[in-house]
Amino acid sequence: MAHKHGLLRERIQFANAEDKQEFTKYPTKAGRRSLSRSISQSSTDSYSSAASYTDSSDDETSPRDKAQVNTHGSSDFCVKNIKQAEFGRREIEIAEQDMSALISLRKRAQGEKPLAGAKIVGCTHITAQTAVLIETLVALGAQCRWTACNIYSTQNEVAAALAETGVPVFAWKGESEDDFWWCIDRCVNTEGWQANMILDDGGDLTHWVYKKYPSVFKKVRGIVEESVTGVHRLYQLSKAGKLCVPAMNVNDSVTKQKFDNLYCCRESILDGLKRTTDIMFGGKQVVVCGYGEVGKGCCTALKALGAIVCITEIDPICALQACMDGFRVVKLSEVIRQMDVVITCTGNKNVVTREQLDRMKNGCIVCNMGHSNTEIDVASLRSPELTWERVRSQVDHIIWPDGKRVVLLAEGRLLNLSCSTVPTFVLSITATTQALALIELFNAPEGRYKQDVYLLPKKMDEYVASLHLPNFDAHLTELSDEQAKYMGLNKNGPFKPNYYRY
Amino acid sequence: MAHKHGLLRERIQFANAEDKQEFTKYPTKAGRRSLSRSISQSSTDSYSSAASYTDSSDDETSPRDKAQVNTHGSSDFCVKNIKQAEFGRREIEIAEQDMSALISLRKRAQGEKPLAGAKIVGCTHITAQTAVLIETLVALGAQCRWTACNIYSTQNEVAAALAETGVPVFAWKGESEDDFWWCIDRCVNTEGWQANMILDDGGDLTHWVYKKYPSVFKKVRGIVEESVTGVHRLYQLSKAGKLCVPAMNVNDSVTKQKFDNLYCCRESILDGLKRTTDIMFGGKQVVVCGYGEVGKGCCTALKALGAIVCITEIDPICALQACMDGFRVVKLSEVIRQMDVVITCTGNKNVVTREQLDRMKNGCIVCNMGHSNTEIDVASLRSPELTWERVRSQVDHIIWPDGKRVVLLAEGRLLNLSCSTVPTFVLSITATTQALALIELFNAPEGRYKQDVYLLPKKMDEYVASLHLPNFDAHLTELSDEQAKYMGLNKNGPFKPNYYRY
Amino acid sequence: MAHKHGLLRERIQFANAEDKQEFTKYPTKAGRRSLSRSISQSSTDSYSSAASYTDSSDDETSPRDKAQVNTHGSSDFCVKNIKQAEFGRREIEIAEQDMSALISLRKRAQGEKPLAGAKIVGCTHITAQTAVLIETLVALGAQCRWTACNIYSTQNEVAAALAETGVPVFAWKGESEDDFWWCIDRCVNTEGWQANMILDDGGDLTHWVYKKYPSVFKKVRGIVEESVTGVHRLYQLSKAGKLCVPAMNVNDSVTKQKFDNLYCCRESILDGLKRTTDIMFGGKQVVVCGYGEVGKGCCTALKALGAIVCITEIDPICALQACMDGFRVVKLSEVIRQMDVVITCTGNKNVVTREQLDRMKNGCIVCNMGHSNTEIDVASLRSPELTWERVRSQVDHIIWPDGKRVVLLAEGRLLNLSCSTVPTFVLSITATTQALALIELFNAPEGRYKQDVYLLPKKMDEYVASLHLPNFDAHLTELSDEQAKYMGLNKNGPFKPNYYRY
Amino acid sequence: MAHKHGLLRERIQFANAEDKQEFTKYPTKAGRRSLSRSISQSSTDSYSSAASYTDSSDDETSPRDKAQVNTHGSSDFCVKNIKQAEFGRREIEIAEQDMSALISLRKRAQGEKPLAGAKIVGCTHITAQTAVLIETLVALGAQCRWTACNIYSTQNEVAAALAETGVPVFAWKGESEDDFWWCIDRCVNTEGWQANMILDDGGDLTHWVYKKYPSVFKKVRGIVEESVTGVHRLYQLSKAGKLCVPAMNVNDSVTKQKFDNLYCCRESILDGLKRTTDIMFGGKQVVVCGYGEVGKGCCTALKALGAIVCITEIDPICALQACMDGFRVVKLSEVIRQMDVVITCTGNKNVVTREQLDRMKNGCIVCNMGHSNTEIDVASLRSPELTWERVRSQVDHIIWPDGKRVVLLAEGRLLNLSCSTVPTFVLSITATTQALALIELFNAPEGRYKQDVYLLPKKMDEYVASLHLPNFDAHLTELSDEQAKYMGLNKNGPFKPNYYRY
Repeated sequence: MAHKHGLLRERIQFANAEDKQEFTKYPTKAGRRSLSRSISQSSTDSYSSAASYTDSSDDETSPRDKAQVNTHGSSDFCVKNIKQAEFGRREIEIAEQDMSALISLRKRAQGEKPLAGAKIVGCTHITAQTAVLIETLVALGAQCRWTACNIYSTQNEVAAALAETGVPVFAWKGESEDDFWWCIDRCVNTEGWQANMILDDGGDLTHWVYKKYPSVFKKVRGIVEESVTGVHRLYQLSKAGKLCVPAMNVNDSVTKQKFDNLYCCRESILDGLKRTTDIMFGGKQVVVCGYGEVGKGCCTALKALGAIVCITEIDPICALQACMDGFRVVKLSEVIRQMDVVITCTGNKNVVTREQLDRMKNGCIVCNMGHSNTEIDVASLRSPELTWERVRSQVDHIIWPDGKRVVLLAEGRLLNLSCSTVPTFVLSITATTQALALIELFNAPEGRYKQDVYLLPKKMDEYVASLHLPNFDAHLTELSDEQAKYMGLNKNGPFKPNYYRY
Repeated sequence: MAHKHGLLRERIQFANAEDKQEFTKYPTKAGRRSLSRSISQSSTDSYSSAASYTDSSDDETSPRDKAQVNTHGSSDFCVKNIKQAEFGRREIEIAEQDMSALISLRKRAQGEKPLAGAKIVGCTHITAQTAVLIETLVALGAQCRWTACNIYSTQNEVAAALAETGVPVFAWKGESEDDFWWCIDRCVNTEGWQANMILDDGGDLTHWVYKKYPSVFKKVRGIVEESVTGVHRLYQLSKAGKLCVPAMNVNDSVTKQKFDNLYCCRESILDGLKRTTDIMFGGKQVVVCGYGEVGKGCCTALKALGAIVCITEIDPICALQACMDGFRVVKLSEVIRQMDVVITCTGNKNVVTREQLDRMKNGCIVCNMGHSNTEIDVASLRSPELTWERVRSQVDHIIWPDGKRVVLLAEGRLLNLSCSTVPTFVLSITATTQALALIELFNAPEGRYKQDVYLLPKKMDEYVASLHLPNFDAHLTELSDEQAKYMGLNKNGPFKPNYYRY
Repeated sequence: MAHKHGLLRERIQFANAEDKQEFTKYPTKAGRRSLSRSISQSSTDSYSSAASYTDSSDDETSPRDKAQVNTHGSSDFCVKNIKQAEFGRREIEIAEQDMSALISLRKRAQGEKPLAGAKIVGCTHITAQTAVLIETLVALGAQCRWTACNIYSTQNEVAAALAETGVPVFAWKGESEDDFWWCIDRCVNTEGWQANMILDDGGDLTHWVYKKYPSVFKKVRGIVEESVTGVHRLYQLSKAGKLCVPAMNVNDSVTKQKFDNLYCCRESILDGLKRTTDIMFGGKQVVVCGYGEVGKGCCTALKALGAIVCITEIDPICALQACMDGFRVVKLSEVIRQMDVVITCTGNKNVVTREQLDRMKNGCIVCNMGHSNTEIDVASLRSPELTWERVRSQVDHIIWPDGKRVVLLAEGRLLNLSCSTVPTFVLSITATTQALALIELFNAPEGRYKQDVYLLPKKMDEYVASLHLPNFDAHLTELSDEQAKYMGLNKNGPFKPNYYRY
Repeated sequence: MAHKHGLLRERIQFANAEDKQEFTKYPTKAGRRSLSRSISQSSTDSYSSAASYTDSSDDETSPRDKAQVNTHGSSDFCVKNIKQAEFGRREIEIAEQDMSALISLRKRAQGEKPLAGAKIVGCTHITAQTAVLIETLVALGAQCRWTACNIYSTQNEVAAALAETGVPVFAWKGESEDDFWWCIDRCVNTEGWQANMILDDGGDLTHWVYKKYPSVFKKVRGIVEESVTGVHRLYQLSKAGKLCVPAMNVNDSVTKQKFDNLYCCRESILDGLKRTTDIMFGGKQVVVCGYGEVGKGCCTALKALGAIVCITEIDPICALQACMDGFRVVKLSEVIRQMDVVITCTGNKNVVTREQLDRMKNGCIVCNMGHSNTEIDVASLRSPELTWERVRSQVDHIIWPDGKRVVLLAEGRLLNLSCSTVPTFVLSITATTQALALIELFNAPEGRYKQDVYLLPKKMDEYVASLHLPNFDAHLTELSDEQAKYMGLNKNGPFKPNYYRY
């Protein structure tokens, strides 16, 4: 049910269409076949953001085969081209403008250096925004080594900029699977340095350490994991009694969830549909399958722009909420013939079936904002009687024998992963949560955290939120002593019980 | 933080202003002084709904002194006037139209009678809506005896109608405190009948049984309690190890909370302001103190009607939500001079201070949608330099020496309790939840529930929701076997984990 | 198509239900039969606002038979009870707080007295708000004599307060038709004073002068008329060549229209439905017939509160607007069975037919926000097979033989005239427009206005708007000389061409 | 004040960034200098839509120098490459799906051929959507010759497809000014064919005919003009007594205006901001300068997505509307320091001055949705102390000496012209209006139209709307005879007076 936006960490630029098709459509499928089971799916997800600002051109040499040195004489890194550092630096500076929470964290922690002594090995998307996170960790006293959690998503220029400042980075856009594991290994397995903290996104780094260097865990004070997939893996380890250090699940913190799902989808559904189809929202009949946080975000935005929205639900409580929010609750089959747009947000599979696709009207747009790419039964459309016509990047017309066209976006993969962007502000919330989780685990007194998976303490979640309020010039009210006593609260929070629903 | 709408269970009719003032303003205060500590505050709360449809006129005889018999020859009841039964029956019939969930519960349980053998003693507001609940319990097989949880709120005609059909009811509008306890006692202490279930609202009945007839608890299978206050008492008993039967907290079920707080306040804030002040919402500057569910409801509605709304918050997470929802987050003192309307929804005290009241502009409206009547420091306004002018029922002008007027609604008590109505539909959700909680406790196998306070199982919460979907002609989707398996769910729910935030 | 809010000029207080029924239901109908054709319908419209703040009690003597003198020794007035003046004064003072536009007009015109020499005879509702207008006219230099345009709507206390300060007022609540014309006559036909300006609402005063004292028109510089009906009469006179002075149609000024229709209905539809039925809006299926300004206001508000709204239209342009605004456009017969609420806003007749009423579901609410009381074919419901049950003031249940109930509000008359209030702020806009129209006509150089009906010059309309901006602390931007030149505009307006659609 | 969307007629694809910069930034400016005064500004406006679907590659030969023949043997056309016809045909077919109004016009007119005998010379953007219009005109019986109204906007493949089917088209992307006039001339000046109707967009074609072939007007039955600029020229001609044929101003028809301004901007403001800046709308402080239709559209959308919006206005009526719609009305200078986004929608110049730009906060986004590119004083930013940094196509960072960055979009030109798309549905409304205007003028009986500029008759405006209702499955209600009589309306419209404000 949870939502996998964690994968999407950077600005997306619509690059040359050919280029994009090349790496999204064909190679992805080819690539997947050759990947071993152990690699996380997310590490090879297609990534529409071209991610490369400068023309990385004709240089076909593998970074592994190049000898590169930064201006400080270090060669403890492996990136596409260290000369792109300057360009990458500018991107990082631009990202910093929207990540003032991390900047203020740097300032607040100027004296104490809460991560002094921390040796963090990280495996995330490598983008301007994560660069701001990494450089914040360094500013807080940590040493870091970094690699990429996805073979397509690295911004080469940013990787170069990090390497130039002395962060050992091992990542480039378009890694092979072998490259992927080689990079991880180079991060972990280095002489004279041993990680005592892990920051992971997807669980591949953790998996590698478990498999190859289990002794590393003796020194590791904790793992911070961000993705649904990685968190799932950790819970399984914990259940199996194999988790040997505390782990922090930052995926499920309130602030991150609300931004990744409700607030972000409220904007990205519009953006994704507009960029791909130029649809006019006013007056369009839309059915949204699923009225969880993602569905609520989609419905709010579409209704606000004049679409006529109905929803499908399996859960009567969510269905009742939809009613009260002004949406008709229907079964998909009842309305499918009239719909202009069908959006899935369920986390379930085969929510839109071939039979329903057969009954859609000409021009109906179908897309997925949910979890997996099986919500729409896309496989059923790959049959001989139907013609696929790629009309734009991420846009296919599926043509029925009678000429009817259904417009399928991103081949049923996540629309907002593939066709829209995630604002830096959202990434700032995730990055700040990660930074605080690292500080918490690194500084926790012996015994506070066992070998288990923890949620971020509510007070830290509140702290993440408070660090982002200045962006809105928002002014919090403080409880008076008398009020705090009356409410039975500490003046500094936490302000709500754990079960509070927000 | 929770919200006390439970008190408000009936239609409010704007009756003769004098009449209302009489029982709200002066007698309330006088009355309170004479009440013992043990009586719950809610039992004597002012109740703006006149509640009496027919003119109960000049009959000054206490019901306790009258000999009344219903048409079936029974005199096991005590109501104002049994002859009003026919009028009350019509009210019940009208209420039934909007409480189809209970009606359908009657139908579904026609064969099995899940409450056969249940002997329920109840203490709630006695209104057309609770009458539908009581008659549903009877239809499900229960025997019931009933009394009122508030000395002002009984609809005499409805009480008569219940008594006429054979339900022993002991309640009338305008009871004294002595009457109040006498009625409770008559319900509990009757020969040849001993309750095995308790349905309480406020905890006074439970308190009485504990104090006077503790042995009754030997046969009682459970207590169902609806109010914040009553639930609080139960938790205290439980903590003190004195709770001797299972208790069900229906106040905190998801469905009830959302309706009592978010959805209901979204409507009642408009209704309450309009009925008292005829204010035009468009363009008004409004500050809402507190962005919990109640605050969210108020803000949504006011913004939708063109008010310019800002909020105050102590909790950074709620504050960040307010930002994302488009509300400026301010400190009250920063904006107080510009505001046209100030609304408190915090559950805290002294949120609006005398100093802030002094700085309000002429004509500013101040009211409370929160929990207690101390959110606005009304006491500070009862000082010699200020003049109070009652301009309408529930509306006072407080006049400063320079002529400035502040418009105080309901003397700072809950606006929606005092000045607006609660739709029958909302009451239907509460009543259905109560009925299901009774069924659950009565039928639970030995040992499922200990001597503790429980929340309604999520599946039952979902069932309450599902019973209300037909009102909206909403059609739920059913999981296929394959989908249920994929999601790891039972096809019949529950569909969400307990911590799900909705 | 225009909307008749002009009739509704005061606060409505829900008084004792009996009282209201008495004068709305039976007497109205009886009354109408006895009225001659010449009286405008509006003068006898039912008026739900009880309008009488103090208990006018048992005094059955006709004001015409009483000898009353104010404290200044004058007896040139006829009101219910001059002793109620003090109470009325307070009402006027309260109204002044929300009518700052008129107050600022008084201040701006302090030196010049633009109405010095004006002798105005007025015929309007007599309420606290019109009192503020009248006293403004006096402050601007005018002499005024005043009478009521509706036999039910006079606030006796306000009339007394005006009489006390020396304005000859002839009006009371509950006039007979004979009283009505007698009062008008006493205003016009007085020795030593001859009106040179007429302010009318409904056209009855104008009609009387035409019929009885045509010579008065020799001195009259102009007529200001506010109502749809009165304006219609004036256009007919003009067409027939019988209009012998300039007349100003203030009904159709932009500002007034937007407030009377779009903005006011946006609020009053909610208020009217809530006060009469306690309906919960969330999730309700509503059809609004007509998507003009009134319909747009209703739809916006209902949608914002979670209703699911569809509309009917005859005009494809308005229908297309509805589509773009997110409303399904349907034929009434297609959806009538599913609807919870049916609202007419068309200005047309028989928009809801008996056949459609027959097909409504149980509990469906039907009401009219449009022009006439024939939009719903209420007459067809007065047939023997149907039972009418009055369940509250303004609320009838029509019961079909099978037990189905349809809830008819205000017997099909205007919901907002009958069941909700009009904020003083809206009345301020109307009153300010009237004052400016009087100033314009009185001061216009000879020949600017012929014997025709004029709209208020756009610049004056803009001035009315600008006088109301301070209520919102709104700050206008001024054009620089360069910008004004670039736009070809005068810096002081008018800023838009006459055909501008706003 | 009117809005110049007419310029924007096609899908925009974000092509290779370099490519775009090339033709928008430098050549535009260079190009303009060399253009004579007589050419309309719109003909050389930058055009962000790359417009070329296939790679037009390396072919540097001027189309004027190529000999091309279509498969029917005709060479009466001049396009980039006739071989691209097939690709263009598919684009036209896709456009047809969203232009069902024109398709239904083809069907309805199948028998009568209302344009039989019409010889139309047209000068518009040449895109898939205009191709649907042209082929509709042909289907209705007309002969057409066509050329482009903008040197950058032609979709070469579409031009080829038209030429292939036999429409003489003279247009390609990237014409020189000389090419531009040569193409127009080839359309008009052809042997054995003389135009009797003109369809123009910008007035260049009309200008050319006036200048070079005035005798053509002897046979011309009328001119249909769509752009603000072209209409302005026609009114000037008319005023000067030089207009020698009737002209139809389709720019100001109700339907077109609402779609071009209110409805389209409501969507394109979000699209334009998102595509250029990836901004998160939630919680952003935005000031919109101007609350006309464009401003209303922008404000509605931004508020709906959680931005906190205030407005500036010079017109008190629009300002009052803003208040009632829930927007604070401010002076720009009062708020400029706090704003995250500044949007101009005024039609005026220097609305945002250098002084205000100096006071903006770091990261403030500035853009223009209004008419001209002088609303923001961009010229003042081209000064030595400021650094311009192009960070993306259409996005410049202006950097102050202290490091502050202001984000300027599209160099102050129209955001929606430059950075977002116009849905085909909007273009369908314009195209249908043009087709009906041609039919009306061509078939009007002698004398109905003089040598003047006319607005489309309201009935035709209604017809355009009605042709678009099926897209929304909207069902109009028909007046009964009785109702039509009561309302004084013809059952087929027009339904509103000319001054109706919608």
